[in-house]
Amino acid sequence: MITPLLGSSFIGYSRSTGTEPCGTAVQPGTGSVLEPVYHSATPDEVERAMALAAAAFPIFSNRSAADRAGFLRAIALEIEGVIDDVVERGMLETALAEPRLRGEMGRTTGQLRMFANLIEEGSWVDARIDRADPDRKPIPKVDLRSMLRPLGPVAVFCASNFPLAFSVAGGDSASALAAGCPVVVIAHASHPGVAEIIASAVIRAAKLTDMPEGVFSVLYGGGRKVGQAVVKHPVIQAVGFTGSRSGGTALMATAASRPQPIPVYAEMSSVNPIVVLPGALDRGEDEFATAFFGSLTLGVGQFCTNPGLVFLPAGKGDGFLAKLKSLVEAGAPGTMLNAAIAKSFVDSTAAIASVPGVKTLARCSTEAGQDQAAPAVFVVSIEDFLKNPLLQHEMFGPATLVVRGTLEEIESAVLGLEGQLTASLHATEAELAAHSGLVFALQNRAGRVIFNGFPTGVEVCNSMVHGGPFPATSDGRSSSVGTMSIFRFCRPVSWQSFPDAALPAELQEANPLDIRRME
Amino acid sequence: MITPLLGSSFIGYSRSTGTEPCGTAVQPGTGSVLEPVYHSATPDEVERAMALAAAAFPIFSNRSAADRAGFLRAIALEIEGVIDDVVERGMLETALAEPRLRGEMGRTTGQLRMFANLIEEGSWVDARIDRADPDRKPIPKVDLRSMLRPLGPVAVFCASNFPLAFSVAGGDSASALAAGCPVVVIAHASHPGVAEIIASAVIRAAKLTDMPEGVFSVLYGGGRKVGQAVVKHPVIQAVGFTGSRSGGTALMATAASRPQPIPVYAEMSSVNPIVVLPGALDRGEDEFATAFFGSLTLGVGQFCTNPGLVFLPAGKGDGFLAKLKSLVEAGAPGTMLNAAIAKSFVDSTAAIASVPGVKTLARCSTEAGQDQAAPAVFVVSIEDFLKNPLLQHEMFGPATLVVRGTLEEIESAVLGLEGQLTASLHATEAELAAHSGLVFALQNRAGRVIFNGFPTGVEVCNSMVHGGPFPATSDGRSSSVGTMSIFRFCRPVSWQSFPDAALPAELQEANPLDIRRME
Repeated sequence: MITPLLGSSFIGYSRSTGTEPCGTAVQPGTGSVLEPVYHSATPDEVERAMALAAAAFPIFSNRSAADRAGFLRAIALEIEGVIDDVVERGMLETALAEPRLRGEMGRTTGQLRMFANLIEEGSWVDARIDRADPDRKPIPKVDLRSMLRPLGPVAVFCASNFPLAFSVAGGDSASALAAGCPVVVIAHASHPGVAEIIASAVIRAAKLTDMPEGVFSVLYGGGRKVGQAVVKHPVIQAVGFTGSRSGGTALMATAASRPQPIPVYAEMSSVNPIVVLPGALDRGEDEFATAFFGSLTLGVGQFCTNPGLVFLPAGKGDGFLAKLKSLVEAGAPGTMLNAAIAKSFVDSTAAIASVPGVKTLARCSTEAGQDQAAPAVFVVSIEDFLKNPLLQHEMFGPATLVVRGTLEEIESAVLGLEGQLTASLHATEAELAAHSGLVFALQNRAGRVIFNGFPTGVEVCNSMVHGGPFPATSDGRSSSVGTMSIFRFCRPVSWQSFPDAALPAELQEANPLDIRRME
Repeated sequence: MITPLLGSSFIGYSRSTGTEPCGTAVQPGTGSVLEPVYHSATPDEVERAMALAAAAFPIFSNRSAADRAGFLRAIALEIEGVIDDVVERGMLETALAEPRLRGEMGRTTGQLRMFANLIEEGSWVDARIDRADPDRKPIPKVDLRSMLRPLGPVAVFCASNFPLAFSVAGGDSASALAAGCPVVVIAHASHPGVAEIIASAVIRAAKLTDMPEGVFSVLYGGGRKVGQAVVKHPVIQAVGFTGSRSGGTALMATAASRPQPIPVYAEMSSVNPIVVLPGALDRGEDEFATAFFGSLTLGVGQFCTNPGLVFLPAGKGDGFLAKLKSLVEAGAPGTMLNAAIAKSFVDSTAAIASVPGVKTLARCSTEAGQDQAAPAVFVVSIEDFLKNPLLQHEMFGPATLVVRGTLEEIESAVLGLEGQLTASLHATEAELAAHSGLVFALQNRAGRVIFNGFPTGVEVCNSMVHGGPFPATSDGRSSSVGTMSIFRFCRPVSWQSFPDAALPAELQEANPLDIRRME
């Protein structure tokens, strides 16, 4: 390890001197305690991080896009300089394997560079120009120009299941910084060491690129305590979160009850329904079961887009179920991210299994060890499914519920589903064309609709929507992945009758940044 | 009158048979009761309007943009066919003068045609295309395409102060319909007859253009009763509102407490601060006072963008104040939109006048008659202003508060203001350049910043932001005027690996609609 782990928060460019312990990392699968002890930021330090962020906002948000892009690229480089530290510590803290951590690191630095490119190109600000017309009757027309501007300091909560891509320098932080918002990160208790390594890299990048102190702080002390204090603070103007439904809805309630309510972007829970039509089964039930099992168990099922609900036409798919049963029984338990998630998997699968009408189709034959999850598949009729809303609840991990009914029942059930991140249809092209009502229902319930594919695997690109109606997210108008995610931290501002030189460069008459504008 | 007034709600293409009276229009200034009696929609009828809207959504949202544009243009034409009815009834119900009502009618039909043009052109949907790359390593890249899609049925509350442009077929309805959302309007008790005339025109247009029944309903029965029931209904996916802060925050609370929270776009209250620097006074204090008085008293001050707060440099502007005093004293009281608004003006000006340190600079010499407001100007030192948050409250009507302090004090006070629809700076270009901190503060507190102009007069165009941080609106990321307002009723959706023919036309490979796309 080249990064010393001090166990303390980053209050802008200073380190916390708080002495109240808030926990240590624990190795999943062994329960071993990992040094060092972490300490809560003190209330005064939280206040100072807020004051620094407030002071940084006018400076940082008025830096040129090229300057901000340089900061983002410097973060990517600094992170790459400590990748071995991240992998070493990450494997201990999260039980994720080295290839996954290296892959997630590539995604993280890729996101930072994607946003650097986006803001350097500049057209994302949606510049709009309506020029004056002093001769217009009955009243002269004024000059009006608008573009997106950053909201202000943003609170970002680290995710347990993405210690890199949705944590300290993950998608929320990258998009907020790209927009021009200072960021205050609340570290996750499950991987505090990784957070500290990445935080050190970000702070080095901020200093190297001469960013104002306060553009970035990372606080330890827990989401419920320090996190709630941050979200309540008047300086904070938006919140990014990936985690549980209870955690996300608690943040929504806190944000809504502020004297000034603020937007919360919480990516919370989704069962990612898959509808299977007969034609898809005709292509080969074994192959379909194998592909499905791969998506279900990828990363021990610890993805927001894990396929937790399958609609199967009544009387069809016995071959699919038989093959899935054999795969699940022969499958291997996997160590989960932490003990709490492993316990929650046991509890949520037990809750589903105990609902009247639910049958356990298959469980992994190998018993789960400490902090492990073993794949499981449950089956229920659509009548029983519709009777109990609990059956729409996420089992975070490698478990799924198969619902069998007629196509009419399935279409009707999909219409009544809660909001989802994704919804998939497996069918022939002829079936796709013949079931427009079903396709509309799937699209209406999700941020992303998938044809003949599986929902795991989230491409980071311009057209990715990783969002969806509540409770998939708190705000279905947004995406937390891809370039669209920058819009979460912006609002439009109009300038009326301003002299050209006083306008942002994006709106000046000569278009010095050469961006696409609506005019 | 060519439109018969029946006093009943529009439940899709049927008329309500509810018999519970919910009020009559009352002529402001006289208190005369205007026929007919209006009747509440029954709970069953509200339920039926919801069911019709839900059934209309998949049909309407999948109609081509050209079809929806035809509907919007037909509404404009049908409204133009009843303009004399609207003016005749509108003058009685609102005390607004004929030129204002004809002007607002032009704005209303202009908005409808603006949205028709916008959706017919089609690029507003933000189409994004990332093509597949089956050879990509380590995993193949899938085909992903995204665009904005409508949220679902929208509830629109009519505004008291814009019986046409922010009511039945106003900006909220026009933008929601343009997006592809069915609309359920809650009529305002202050101008039920105008609402009925316009509703009849919209329903005729819907039938003429073969729109699904349920694309439009208009309910009587009041915002608190029928309106709350609508906002709580699971069919409704967003809310548009222009009105008081108490009304808007009540809707926000209702929407946030639903099992599925939904976005509320409430445009609520703003004092539209104006900062005057010495150079602006040097150009002529009398002229400045005259122009300011014109903005302050336009439409009896009943605009969301009325300038209710003026920051004047200490020791400067005595000439401005003297001239303003003479104008206010010689001014005329005007009849307000209804008795409640007139009473609220009396109450809010009395509350401001009674705050310690506040002096009444001038009141109109002519006493206000029934339902009238008389212009008034109050003055306070910046020290006293900062002591009492009440002084930031809106006095809806022709009254303003002048705050005097040093430039440093003013910049600091602006930073601490609540969110505003607009913020204006009157200064020379040299002063503008020299006070970047002040300009940043103004921009940070408002949706629209204005240089050497007055906030009244809201241009309907691409670059207008009629929005701003809370409490100016419930959602500072939005505008309720201009083409941007359509974004309020949309969310992005991704299609992954769909065959070309199954994609929306906007995303098909050949780009048949010839729209601008990000690819």
